[in-house]
Amino acid sequence: MRVLAKAVSELARAEPGKMIELSGWVHRIRELGGVSFIMLRDRSGLVQLVLEGKTDLTLESVVSVQGTVAVNDKAPGGAEVCVQHMSVLSRAEPDLPFPVNGDMSKVGLDVILDNRPLSLRNPRIRSIFRVQSTIIEAFTEYLRREDFTEIKTSKLIGSGTEGGTGLFEVDYFDRKVYLAQSPQFYKQTMIASGLERVFEIAPAYRAEKHDTPRHLNEYVSLDVEMAFISSEADLIELEKHLLAHIFEALARKNAEDLAAWNATVPDPDLVFKAPTIAHDEALDLARSEAGRGAAGAVAGAAVGATAGHSAAGATAGATAGSANPAFFEISPEVERLLCTWAGRERGIELVFVNQFPRRHRPFYTYPSSATHTMSFDALFRGLEITTGGRRQEQYQALLEVLPRFGLKAEDLKDYLMVFKYGCPPHGGFAIGCERLTQKVLGLSNVKEASLFPRDRRRVSP
Amino acid sequence: MRVLAKAVSELARAEPGKMIELSGWVHRIRELGGVSFIMLRDRSGLVQLVLEGKTDLTLESVVSVQGTVAVNDKAPGGAEVCVQHMSVLSRAEPDLPFPVNGDMSKVGLDVILDNRPLSLRNPRIRSIFRVQSTIIEAFTEYLRREDFTEIKTSKLIGSGTEGGTGLFEVDYFDRKVYLAQSPQFYKQTMIASGLERVFEIAPAYRAEKHDTPRHLNEYVSLDVEMAFISSEADLIELEKHLLAHIFEALARKNAEDLAAWNATVPDPDLVFKAPTIAHDEALDLARSEAGRGAAGAVAGAAVGATAGHSAAGATAGATAGSANPAFFEISPEVERLLCTWAGRERGIELVFVNQFPRRHRPFYTYPSSATHTMSFDALFRGLEITTGGRRQEQYQALLEVLPRFGLKAEDLKDYLMVFKYGCPPHGGFAIGCERLTQKVLGLSNVKEASLFPRDRRRVSP
Repeated sequence: MRVLAKAVSELARAEPGKMIELSGWVHRIRELGGVSFIMLRDRSGLVQLVLEGKTDLTLESVVSVQGTVAVNDKAPGGAEVCVQHMSVLSRAEPDLPFPVNGDMSKVGLDVILDNRPLSLRNPRIRSIFRVQSTIIEAFTEYLRREDFTEIKTSKLIGSGTEGGTGLFEVDYFDRKVYLAQSPQFYKQTMIASGLERVFEIAPAYRAEKHDTPRHLNEYVSLDVEMAFISSEADLIELEKHLLAHIFEALARKNAEDLAAWNATVPDPDLVFKAPTIAHDEALDLARSEAGRGAAGAVAGAAVGATAGHSAAGATAGATAGSANPAFFEISPEVERLLCTWAGRERGIELVFVNQFPRRHRPFYTYPSSATHTMSFDALFRGLEITTGGRRQEQYQALLEVLPRFGLKAEDLKDYLMVFKYGCPPHGGFAIGCERLTQKVLGLSNVKEASLFPRDRRRVSP
Repeated sequence: MRVLAKAVSELARAEPGKMIELSGWVHRIRELGGVSFIMLRDRSGLVQLVLEGKTDLTLESVVSVQGTVAVNDKAPGGAEVCVQHMSVLSRAEPDLPFPVNGDMSKVGLDVILDNRPLSLRNPRIRSIFRVQSTIIEAFTEYLRREDFTEIKTSKLIGSGTEGGTGLFEVDYFDRKVYLAQSPQFYKQTMIASGLERVFEIAPAYRAEKHDTPRHLNEYVSLDVEMAFISSEADLIELEKHLLAHIFEALARKNAEDLAAWNATVPDPDLVFKAPTIAHDEALDLARSEAGRGAAGAVAGAAVGATAGHSAAGATAGATAGSANPAFFEISPEVERLLCTWAGRERGIELVFVNQFPRRHRPFYTYPSSATHTMSFDALFRGLEITTGGRRQEQYQALLEVLPRFGLKAEDLKDYLMVFKYGCPPHGGFAIGCERLTQKVLGLSNVKEASLFPRDRRRVSP
């Protein structure tokens, strides 16, 4: 019966000399005074094997060993296994393109992504996806507890709800279809159908050409939709509960993974202190924060400030007084400034921006006035991780608004049908799974948080 | 504070006369002696509203009401709400294409699928997707408990592992990519990477032209991969535990949904009694079962047998003695016969068929002999719901087998890399989510178990 590496330490203390079986990868080999010390790696961690004589094992080979456990305070974890028998299950070729057991921060992102079967063996790289698995688990867990039903909807759509821009085209037998940008139409269908509360975890596609550290052409969208809401405030409240639950789960289950990145998750209680700021005031606040950053940078230059935020502040601040186009909308610059402000003032770099102007949001967004909407974004640690809002559920109101957006009812027949026969007030949002993972761990590029990212150049492995 | 329909009965008994608020859809209207009786439907069920005078409400409109709860043994559920105030949140147009509150078995499948926002309001139709949600939840729950990590992998692949047949082509910027038929390559990468145990729930695509009650061009694949197995027997054991856990969860959480379809799930204990039959013997057994069916049909004709199985048996039995091509492979006919046999002999219509001939399985399947493989299918209630097996993890063995399948190492560079640097013995399988849903409920067409199914003709809604 196989034992995991993490169990050895306790076994050695409880039953020294006990014979056990271990399986895993050869992580490191050290030869010393006629004895070989092998670090064996399995899914649970590392354990030291002690072997008489030299070894012809190659790094990363997969082995299965039988041996006796022993306490050894000098061994990592305070225990080791004295090998009686070893079999090589799969021998690794010796030409590893980079050392898996080394410091991966010196290996370039493209090399990491090109060599996923190897780079993921590095415990720090692999920890990214253990964190992601917990994010998905906690998201699901909270919503199921609140009576949400998980749905699975098609990613192949006959036509784009908002036209064909940004859509990937698929050859579908004798016709063209598109990869869905979001399951929003389907989520709304499920609201109208009476499920009332639904969520979906699925890929979403954006045929956008930009190649930045914050964009992916294929990403995992954590989607939520809820009926019988009054405004976007109900959705912001739900997202706060979700994030608090996710942060709590990460702190509890992934302490080692977080430590590997020197990362901490926000105190779940602080999530409920995150401010909600109306779009127009948010731009003013960002301008003033940029000014403060500029002032800080000047002051900082005198006292030797650290880099990072103040450098960004200096750039923005320099042009804050003038008509800097970065402040005409919630730009990446504004996202960073608002989160810096919230971090200082509220102790958490999480900001909800609501009340976006109607011209910035799609036709289906519910208006809060002639000029603004019941919509919101969530910004976390300087990055937009969520867009959401209440949707227009009134059939007549939708028919009336279409021409203002250059749309025709006959092109949106399937969509309009959702509202023709009784649809409750509702809304929803989506959290970008890779972006949240990125920001939890402080990764510099969102592609690091995707197992097999797709961008304009990359379609393999 | 809104109350759900299902809570009214208990409230009426505990606090008769209590004022509550309800929201939902107008399911049915009956006027009697100057009083209107309205069945209100929400996500939890139905409750009777009593309203003085006539009403101009339309069926399926969404309303919010305030009223007092009262015990009434004649009302469904034994309670009702006397309405004090009602507001219409969303008025339904009166031209419903079919009655949502009626018997949907008379509504054709195409009408049901074309009108998902309406057909899903029928409680029986909606129950299909509550069952599906539990299947996904229980699948996830069991695997997480067994230390499996959930992964999310790309559905856009640069090239097909087994050539381009059956793949949908996507215009990806300046080149062509394909929609993934399965995440198997990625699951194996994660095995080699050291996660050891992974699962994924995601769409899978098959560009196959057949339009049958058992095929979808886009389906949800419940995928599992596990390291350090000895043979396919370990995988069959895992699938039995998974199915038992799913059946137990369905019996506990979805009793009403199952009842709506007059369906029962197998006793979880019987899952472990399901037989495993080698491929070649399974064909013999099906032939003999067909003969028995033929004999039964003859006997049945004399005593007035029911239709269904014996009709199928008669067809097969008529040609069972001759060289019927239905018995050269595990055909749909054979799947039905084997499950009928298992149902009679073991009390559960679940059969695992293993040891498929090498020529029937892909190049990466691990051989068990010169002619056969460590592979298996799971058949449930007459339908294949799973294909799986141990994979070849030896780099040299893969290189040697490729020419026999007409494949070249240079075309499979990414795939081979998974095995070059140490990969443990492993294998996996996938359960078709819609097929399992179909068979749990006894649906006649797998499309009924897909919210927005895609077939050769259907790409909307």
